[in-house]
Amino acid sequence: MKPIAAILGVGCTKVGEHWERSLLDLAIEACEKALEDAGNPPVRALYVGNAASELMNEQGNISALLADALALDGVKAVEVRAGDASGSLAIHQACLDASFSRGQEGAILVCGVEKMTDVMAPEVARIQMLFEDSRSTFHSGVTIYGLCALLTSLYMSTYGVSYEDIVLLAVNDHKNAANNPYAQYPFPITVETVLSSPLVADPIRLFDTAGIGDGAAAIVLKGPEGARSSSDTPVAVLASEVATDKVNICEREDLLALRSLRLAAGKALGRAGVGLDRLSFIELHNTTSVIGILSLEALGLAEPGKGVDLLKEGAVAIGGRWPVNTMGGLKGRGHPWGATGVYQVVEAVWQLRGEAGKNQVDGAEIGLTSNMCGLGSISCVHVLARWEVMA
Amino acid sequence: MKPIAAILGVGCTKVGEHWERSLLDLAIEACEKALEDAGNPPVRALYVGNAASELMNEQGNISALLADALALDGVKAVEVRAGDASGSLAIHQACLDASFSRGQEGAILVCGVEKMTDVMAPEVARIQMLFEDSRSTFHSGVTIYGLCALLTSLYMSTYGVSYEDIVLLAVNDHKNAANNPYAQYPFPITVETVLSSPLVADPIRLFDTAGIGDGAAAIVLKGPEGARSSSDTPVAVLASEVATDKVNICEREDLLALRSLRLAAGKALGRAGVGLDRLSFIELHNTTSVIGILSLEALGLAEPGKGVDLLKEGAVAIGGRWPVNTMGGLKGRGHPWGATGVYQVVEAVWQLRGEAGKNQVDGAEIGLTSNMCGLGSISCVHVLARWEVMA
Repeated sequence: MKPIAAILGVGCTKVGEHWERSLLDLAIEACEKALEDAGNPPVRALYVGNAASELMNEQGNISALLADALALDGVKAVEVRAGDASGSLAIHQACLDASFSRGQEGAILVCGVEKMTDVMAPEVARIQMLFEDSRSTFHSGVTIYGLCALLTSLYMSTYGVSYEDIVLLAVNDHKNAANNPYAQYPFPITVETVLSSPLVADPIRLFDTAGIGDGAAAIVLKGPEGARSSSDTPVAVLASEVATDKVNICEREDLLALRSLRLAAGKALGRAGVGLDRLSFIELHNTTSVIGILSLEALGLAEPGKGVDLLKEGAVAIGGRWPVNTMGGLKGRGHPWGATGVYQVVEAVWQLRGEAGKNQVDGAEIGLTSNMCGLGSISCVHVLARWEVMA
Repeated sequence: MKPIAAILGVGCTKVGEHWERSLLDLAIEACEKALEDAGNPPVRALYVGNAASELMNEQGNISALLADALALDGVKAVEVRAGDASGSLAIHQACLDASFSRGQEGAILVCGVEKMTDVMAPEVARIQMLFEDSRSTFHSGVTIYGLCALLTSLYMSTYGVSYEDIVLLAVNDHKNAANNPYAQYPFPITVETVLSSPLVADPIRLFDTAGIGDGAAAIVLKGPEGARSSSDTPVAVLASEVATDKVNICEREDLLALRSLRLAAGKALGRAGVGLDRLSFIELHNTTSVIGILSLEALGLAEPGKGVDLLKEGAVAIGGRWPVNTMGGLKGRGHPWGATGVYQVVEAVWQLRGEAGKNQVDGAEIGLTSNMCGLGSISCVHVLARWEVMA
């Protein structure tokens, strides 16, 4: 195990409907928290992950604006864009930078941010579909939840699984979110809550979907050398990998395979030198529950069609074999697109530092985060570890 | 001199009004040309620079779509966004990746692309202003050319320079573009052409502005090891640096300083280990002529207010001391925002390989490219060299 980067500090805003605050307000709060958490090191580069600020906030070039707002005088600033995988890809690029510039002074700040409530919900749905293929899917009028509904129905009919069992993942998310002060929906729900909520796209119900929320999350990282002298509790990035799949899901050989995630996770675990048995917890990208379940299968934690068994057996609960979405996931914590991939890493760092409060996974040593664009056109996987694990 | 990456192949489309072609059509053409030029190596990552595809082409997530269209099965794909500096920043990130993954199999493909004629010109102007600060500049209604007009007037009054002298840079661009088969405006102009063209924003005339054009450019690069066995004519990337300045030009201490360029160029030349005297040619970002002249001064080639002297003395002409925009620059070649930074590197590679035709700079050994977002909120500088120069 050889780290590619060390995380020195993390911070985030509460996910929610921040009507009175701007995208930059949120980003600044998250960045200042992360910098303070890291002991306010000098910063030499800023990476920003965001999906749609020009469309939702009438503002582009937010990496330069944020650098300016944080008084990071003259610093390198780069924005990375990959729909709702923008945050994790920004971290990926920051890891490359940290590794490239080994020995160079200064830390790297990464911020994922999305301010979604500046536009109406139908416009959010329209913008989300711009990350699918406009030549086909976009102009058909189907929404992301429409596509998720097709996959949910296909999953149910292919494997003989009930919708009641699928939404156990949403129930798991909300249970964990209840103890996360930064979660958008910090309250428990039951399967009945989901089934009695409004129908969004048959069979998907409102409480099976990630909501619309504003939020920002940030991390401070640097190359692995001297990490222990920069921080009492550095967290190691053991691997960061990105892979793609066909954007049009109808062109995929197996619609239920999430191939980009399988590829990225395989590479990441290989590079980290750890097997699935070493993972203490997993942060998944569950736009709806079925995507989370397909993710469990793509990771190799369950055979195709058997992902729901992990839910039914309680394996994904805190205290179970592979705790999933320990701070609430996309459903419970909320899903501010470009920020989500950074929230996942922030929450993983809390777990690995033993700061996850009531949701602490006992003896958490190694965690995996999985963030994707749309329905897996791009996947980004990080493997993180307590520094001591590498000894 | 120690290279950070090796460029193995380049390609581009003609810049123009490609009414009948899509953004992806253009990107595919450029990428296929670059890959063929590089001998069709296996590709392990794709980086895309683009400024505004969601707004201009109703399509986001173009890195995944392009990977798919090129049959780069499962490959890593990353989109970088920084207004009209997106292309050079995509190259910057690719260089970090190439360096990070030394020894890893496969090359990295970088494509800068912009399809601007899918929207009307006023919408182009509106979108361009999203890369300024929407809290102030955007809502004032001023355009980029309005801001350039203010800077041009300030430059003229501060240094007692005439507009006739400033636009000599546009004349230089067109002279060089006349011999570039990929240029949007391949014909010579005179100072009188500029002065008799329509007024855009006093004192700026139409022929002092970069036009609206569609285009894509691509390069193939890899880590420096084994470059000579991968290519007969590799070109070395000696440095790639990025810096920022205040986005609101009215907040800058010196409006005529282009501080981000000065910072990025200083770092890049330092890292490359070369002085200005070693540069055989320079590719500048001239949204209008005054930005190009301020760039000459920010680079240190002339004292403040003396940049026009380099034009008047012919120093920037091919055959002069520091040939500038040898294939036409933003004015002559054209300025498809997210593609421009990649076009600059493509053209620099032509010069360093001795393939620049009638515009060949004799004995070209080292070149510098300078690309910026808006009026320098972000600058990215590359220093490139013939491989043999490092011997």
